[in-house]
Amino acid sequence: MAFTHRKIINDPVHGFITINDPIIFGIIGHPFYQRLRRIQQMALAQLVYPGAVHTRLHHSLGAYHLMTIAINELKEKGIEITPQEALAAKAAILLHDIGHGPYSHALEKVLLKGIDHESISLRIMQYLNEEENSILKGQLSLAIQIFTNQYPKKFLHQLISGQLDVDRLDYLSRDSFFTGVSEGVVGYERILKMLTVQGNELVVEEKGLNSVEKFLFARQLMYWQVYRHKTVVASEKMLVKIIERAQYLFNQNDRTVLTGSLLDSFLANANIQLADLDLTAYCNLDDTDILFAIKQWQNNSDPVISMLCKGLLNRKCFKCQIQPTPIGEEQWLKANQTIKERFNLSEADLGFLCFKGTVSNTLYKNDNETIKILLKSGEIANISSIQNALIVESLSAPVKKFYICLLNE
Amino acid sequence: MAFTHRKIINDPVHGFITINDPIIFGIIGHPFYQRLRRIQQMALAQLVYPGAVHTRLHHSLGAYHLMTIAINELKEKGIEITPQEALAAKAAILLHDIGHGPYSHALEKVLLKGIDHESISLRIMQYLNEEENSILKGQLSLAIQIFTNQYPKKFLHQLISGQLDVDRLDYLSRDSFFTGVSEGVVGYERILKMLTVQGNELVVEEKGLNSVEKFLFARQLMYWQVYRHKTVVASEKMLVKIIERAQYLFNQNDRTVLTGSLLDSFLANANIQLADLDLTAYCNLDDTDILFAIKQWQNNSDPVISMLCKGLLNRKCFKCQIQPTPIGEEQWLKANQTIKERFNLSEADLGFLCFKGTVSNTLYKNDNETIKILLKSGEIANISSIQNALIVESLSAPVKKFYICLLNE
Amino acid sequence: MAFTHRKIINDPVHGFITINDPIIFGIIGHPFYQRLRRIQQMALAQLVYPGAVHTRLHHSLGAYHLMTIAINELKEKGIEITPQEALAAKAAILLHDIGHGPYSHALEKVLLKGIDHESISLRIMQYLNEEENSILKGQLSLAIQIFTNQYPKKFLHQLISGQLDVDRLDYLSRDSFFTGVSEGVVGYERILKMLTVQGNELVVEEKGLNSVEKFLFARQLMYWQVYRHKTVVASEKMLVKIIERAQYLFNQNDRTVLTGSLLDSFLANANIQLADLDLTAYCNLDDTDILFAIKQWQNNSDPVISMLCKGLLNRKCFKCQIQPTPIGEEQWLKANQTIKERFNLSEADLGFLCFKGTVSNTLYKNDNETIKILLKSGEIANISSIQNALIVESLSAPVKKFYICLLNE
Amino acid sequence: MAFTHRKIINDPVHGFITINDPIIFGIIGHPFYQRLRRIQQMALAQLVYPGAVHTRLHHSLGAYHLMTIAINELKEKGIEITPQEALAAKAAILLHDIGHGPYSHALEKVLLKGIDHESISLRIMQYLNEEENSILKGQLSLAIQIFTNQYPKKFLHQLISGQLDVDRLDYLSRDSFFTGVSEGVVGYERILKMLTVQGNELVVEEKGLNSVEKFLFARQLMYWQVYRHKTVVASEKMLVKIIERAQYLFNQNDRTVLTGSLLDSFLANANIQLADLDLTAYCNLDDTDILFAIKQWQNNSDPVISMLCKGLLNRKCFKCQIQPTPIGEEQWLKANQTIKERFNLSEADLGFLCFKGTVSNTLYKNDNETIKILLKSGEIANISSIQNALIVESLSAPVKKFYICLLNE
Repeated sequence: MAFTHRKIINDPVHGFITINDPIIFGIIGHPFYQRLRRIQQMALAQLVYPGAVHTRLHHSLGAYHLMTIAINELKEKGIEITPQEALAAKAAILLHDIGHGPYSHALEKVLLKGIDHESISLRIMQYLNEEENSILKGQLSLAIQIFTNQYPKKFLHQLISGQLDVDRLDYLSRDSFFTGVSEGVVGYERILKMLTVQGNELVVEEKGLNSVEKFLFARQLMYWQVYRHKTVVASEKMLVKIIERAQYLFNQNDRTVLTGSLLDSFLANANIQLADLDLTAYCNLDDTDILFAIKQWQNNSDPVISMLCKGLLNRKCFKCQIQPTPIGEEQWLKANQTIKERFNLSEADLGFLCFKGTVSNTLYKNDNETIKILLKSGEIANISSIQNALIVESLSAPVKKFYICLLNE
Repeated sequence: MAFTHRKIINDPVHGFITINDPIIFGIIGHPFYQRLRRIQQMALAQLVYPGAVHTRLHHSLGAYHLMTIAINELKEKGIEITPQEALAAKAAILLHDIGHGPYSHALEKVLLKGIDHESISLRIMQYLNEEENSILKGQLSLAIQIFTNQYPKKFLHQLISGQLDVDRLDYLSRDSFFTGVSEGVVGYERILKMLTVQGNELVVEEKGLNSVEKFLFARQLMYWQVYRHKTVVASEKMLVKIIERAQYLFNQNDRTVLTGSLLDSFLANANIQLADLDLTAYCNLDDTDILFAIKQWQNNSDPVISMLCKGLLNRKCFKCQIQPTPIGEEQWLKANQTIKERFNLSEADLGFLCFKGTVSNTLYKNDNETIKILLKSGEIANISSIQNALIVESLSAPVKKFYICLLNE
Repeated sequence: MAFTHRKIINDPVHGFITINDPIIFGIIGHPFYQRLRRIQQMALAQLVYPGAVHTRLHHSLGAYHLMTIAINELKEKGIEITPQEALAAKAAILLHDIGHGPYSHALEKVLLKGIDHESISLRIMQYLNEEENSILKGQLSLAIQIFTNQYPKKFLHQLISGQLDVDRLDYLSRDSFFTGVSEGVVGYERILKMLTVQGNELVVEEKGLNSVEKFLFARQLMYWQVYRHKTVVASEKMLVKIIERAQYLFNQNDRTVLTGSLLDSFLANANIQLADLDLTAYCNLDDTDILFAIKQWQNNSDPVISMLCKGLLNRKCFKCQIQPTPIGEEQWLKANQTIKERFNLSEADLGFLCFKGTVSNTLYKNDNETIKILLKSGEIANISSIQNALIVESLSAPVKKFYICLLNE
Repeated sequence: MAFTHRKIINDPVHGFITINDPIIFGIIGHPFYQRLRRIQQMALAQLVYPGAVHTRLHHSLGAYHLMTIAINELKEKGIEITPQEALAAKAAILLHDIGHGPYSHALEKVLLKGIDHESISLRIMQYLNEEENSILKGQLSLAIQIFTNQYPKKFLHQLISGQLDVDRLDYLSRDSFFTGVSEGVVGYERILKMLTVQGNELVVEEKGLNSVEKFLFARQLMYWQVYRHKTVVASEKMLVKIIERAQYLFNQNDRTVLTGSLLDSFLANANIQLADLDLTAYCNLDDTDILFAIKQWQNNSDPVISMLCKGLLNRKCFKCQIQPTPIGEEQWLKANQTIKERFNLSEADLGFLCFKGTVSNTLYKNDNETIKILLKSGEIANISSIQNALIVESLSAPVKKFYICLLNE
């Protein structure tokens, strides 16, 4: 009997999202996926952009929607995509971020040292593909192949992960919608209509060139105006320092940082290997556990963690400066001097309250995964080699900036 | 020396919000206010509308912005409003929802039996007005007078609380923006331009009549399509039953429901009097504490609370039916029978898993706080008395609906 | 060989419109259709709403787009629609307004006494279906059957012409977009998703009830706030009086009203029968011819037509009052007295400068073409019979208003 | 007695535009200004973007609105601007485009050889300033000083005409709104909030840098994607060729190109000097006269003008190719050969049907009117000199492209 269930979800960004396949229902209904409701997409950007409180679940639904559109467009252009491939690509994009932990990128490689979210996403996909008594059992093999770029039709992988994938198209549109930063608006509809496939690779028709340029610039501008806004950096660094301090205290045998949730075990095992990760425990963690702990720790007897937590909860973030040149020696010494005079703490402790570092971003990576343009002549060209294009070679050099953070008075 | 600090905040709904007064900065920077970042405006509506994750803080900033516009418009029309009055009205609207607790309306009068959020808002305003070493000390007296409708210029109170106040204009616009439900879009800009004052009361110019009608209908439609969507009702009732179960268990001397946060004391004191409420403790509570508790309780040995918590976390809400006629006797018995067969529990326990009730809403209250229209003739008329208006007398009767909830399999 | 041409058109209202069939290309490329570029959708509403300058061509493309969506939705729900039927329905909606003449509704039945635009649309469809050397020859028979409601699958006709057709969904969305009147925003996406078919008739799923109510109210509000705004009425009546005056002058053997275009012959033949209408000549007329004539006539020696034309060109419209009660005898006499004192003209001439009339609209017609709701129970109900719906019986009575117009000083 | 009249106009782009000064009312009500209703802002871009039918009137109202916002923002920052200066700046921006003739830029310097619209705007302002029996008499002197950059507060002129003026902010926002090309969306609200004044010159606060970059890129992208879209170029060149052909025919003593409107005299006097221009006659011309003539000329016995007019009316534009390199000799010869074979016409006549040329645009002019950024350090820097900015020196070189047009079959 045919499965006829069909559900539509209101998305203020894309309109209506349609779900009409039992596998997709199975993924969305799974507790691991529902957990993404409790992980904010933009971590602490909401301290600057109060509307930016949307979730990972919402983003991955949106990316799924764009994948659906992309596949339909390609099929209309005569590219062969079987129903199985279409379903697998949709499943893969829906699950591409399932490995994110609390506060997404802000705590990536902090809570679990050196483990990136994609690796965890893959582990979870494999887990779901093998889970007993589940509608998903054995249904995700093709999705995993595409996700890991082992499937011959490479364009399916490129739609999930590339310089012009539906992941980026969704998050730029979504983040610009929820922050209200009009600079990030991306003509994703037009870009999707300009995609086609040549030799199993995704290419963009020449008349879509402007839209792609616009997309790359929008991403760059969002990066510096939103994702690396100095107050966002300040607050996300604060969050990192809080977790690192809690890990440190735990390692000092301080048990007052335990809060009774599964977070406790992760504080104790930050250096765990991916293979040893308890996925069920991990998929029980979300922003709530961290935020709850921070609320508890604001009253901790350790002054460092207590100050950091109070600051974050009450939006008294680090004083942060971001500049194009390295932090000068004098500036650095002065900041350290200031903080030393204010707090009677050890050098190591002060390192949680005053520190420096770098942030960087590349507008366009001129590597082996370039954006390819299908010229009217039929030739295919790397976007950065096109005459008069705005994307010139020089823009593929990363822009690096330097920051210094200091606990505010 | 003049205070020249000025800050603009991106709001995807209204554009840019400007803050340029130290009292306003003082309110926004206060921990009690920052807490509103951690209370979602629409409680659990996000289970149906994934974008609806905006916060009470965002809403109150938006209402503040509309108040600023309203005051400017009235002043342009020659209505006298002193700088002090303007500031007080802005402070009052910024604080109008500060008394909301975790999950706003969904847990109102549940966590604290019988105490509404406005009473708590007032208590907090008074507290802030008397707090030592605060820039706010003594600065909120006029705001309190306006909030409690004791100030002669009644229109200032009406802008905060009436059938056509900036609170409603903001939340309808905002909720419709974040849910993506275009039906709720309200022409607030136009309505604000049509407001004027006669005899100290707010009135709407006749040419604004259509916009006001539209606003009332939009509110009604949002009510049934969003705020009382059956899955929203089902999930919010689930939340209520969870808290009531925890209170019940605590009263049975079950200490396993304690989670180590300040929520513990509230579970124990649900029947506290407003006068006895510890405001500092209350203002430490937010959605996090509840959600953390629910995550803990899903593993509680009490099957009732455990099932409810798992259901809510994984979006397996009650099966809920809402209908215009009372739940029939047969229907009610059958539901009870079903639940009894599934669970070996006492009658009292089953009451948490299967129950019924009513929801209602009134499109337009034809009471002493009617919406007044300033006719071209100079006369003032109650909107429902205007010929050919869509707001007819009959629409002022409340619409009442009946629901039944039953734990899903 | 398969036709693979495909074109996308940017529409600020709906996004991208895709055209991918040679018949559709044939219609759009036809001079009769391209003429719709030169006929404004909202006639003179732009005198009040400066953005409202969109064209009939744009509206019919938009309606075509919504038809495409509607058909896809219905097919996804299992309703059988053959490719031929789909194409015919699209062709019919694209052509539904092709019979409009200059200034659309404003001059309907004025330029050609008593002939409505639908009859002319039909004639033109038949003409195109028979035109030699055209790709359209013989291709529009099914479209004509659907347009005239002679095809058994009645729902296809209902999508073109009914109380909830894609024509209305498009023009409300479009007119509200271009005027900036947010009150008219319609959730057309949602409504289209809620449509289904029962017994060959279009019905709306019960959960779409709110959206339909909203749509009906939006239409009503747009009617009075935009389409019958008093200045819009004043200017469109001015246009009517200009044409009527030119017809009158021509009939008085005054040849100074001729401008050398095909309009001349229409001035002379206002009472032509539909069967005698020269379609090629008619399809050469557009707003340009009228506007050019008005520019010429502002210098005509007839003071009546000269004053009317100058007034319209310089936006000095009639002074117009619209009211719920009939124009009082005293008011009418006073207006006539005023105009008589200003101008030394005959009674008949003054009738062009001072006159009265009525405008009316019905929110919901409770006739044989009601909107049908498919209840969850499986029953089908007329929307106005549903308990607690906002569409009550009383709203199906037409709202009638009375106006008086008088040449401004 | 104070003037208290106040009017609000719905603008779908900016919301509501408020008019509250008798001088502004006087300008808007003047027939010369109302004429701008009949001149489309984007000439023939609507042949590609059907929504792009907005008018010069709408654009200048929008620019006036942005000027109002800009002035309020600057005043809030303590920049002294007197009421007289504010009014003059608003009057100047309202009138900045009043000198545009039919089809704006498309026919600029074609209808009147070598005369640009700004010069005519200035002449008209002077005319209005001296017109007898007008509320404007003597009221525009300061506006003229600002418009011609002779007023000491240079920033007022810069707001009207510079690389970051309210003219550009409005037209980019408006054109992108009406075309539906999201790439052109500009964060004008944010840019306006970032403006300030130093040494009488307009500067942008450093934190507005991203928005300005985005604005420059948006302009560039709109240029190539919309304003110089190949079909737009093709159709506007067609319009130019039509007028040039009509002028040519008239000069050959062919009187069949006369249509009875004031256009006739302009066909005969294309080489008139600005000083001799009859402003009243000029301000009677609008798109209507040209379009009417084109409709007449499609039946002219001259095959060249007839073919061109039919092509334009029925959207059979030139076949046009735009490329980064000059049109090759071979390509050019082949096109000429093709056209010669199709038409038995003289070399001179064929020049109207097959020709080539260049179009160019500069992203950012690094001249004496650069965009200045007020750095956090207090220094002022040219935007192109800022490290890591996207606006690099190389982008100030103009991008030049080459086109060839050929009458389509």
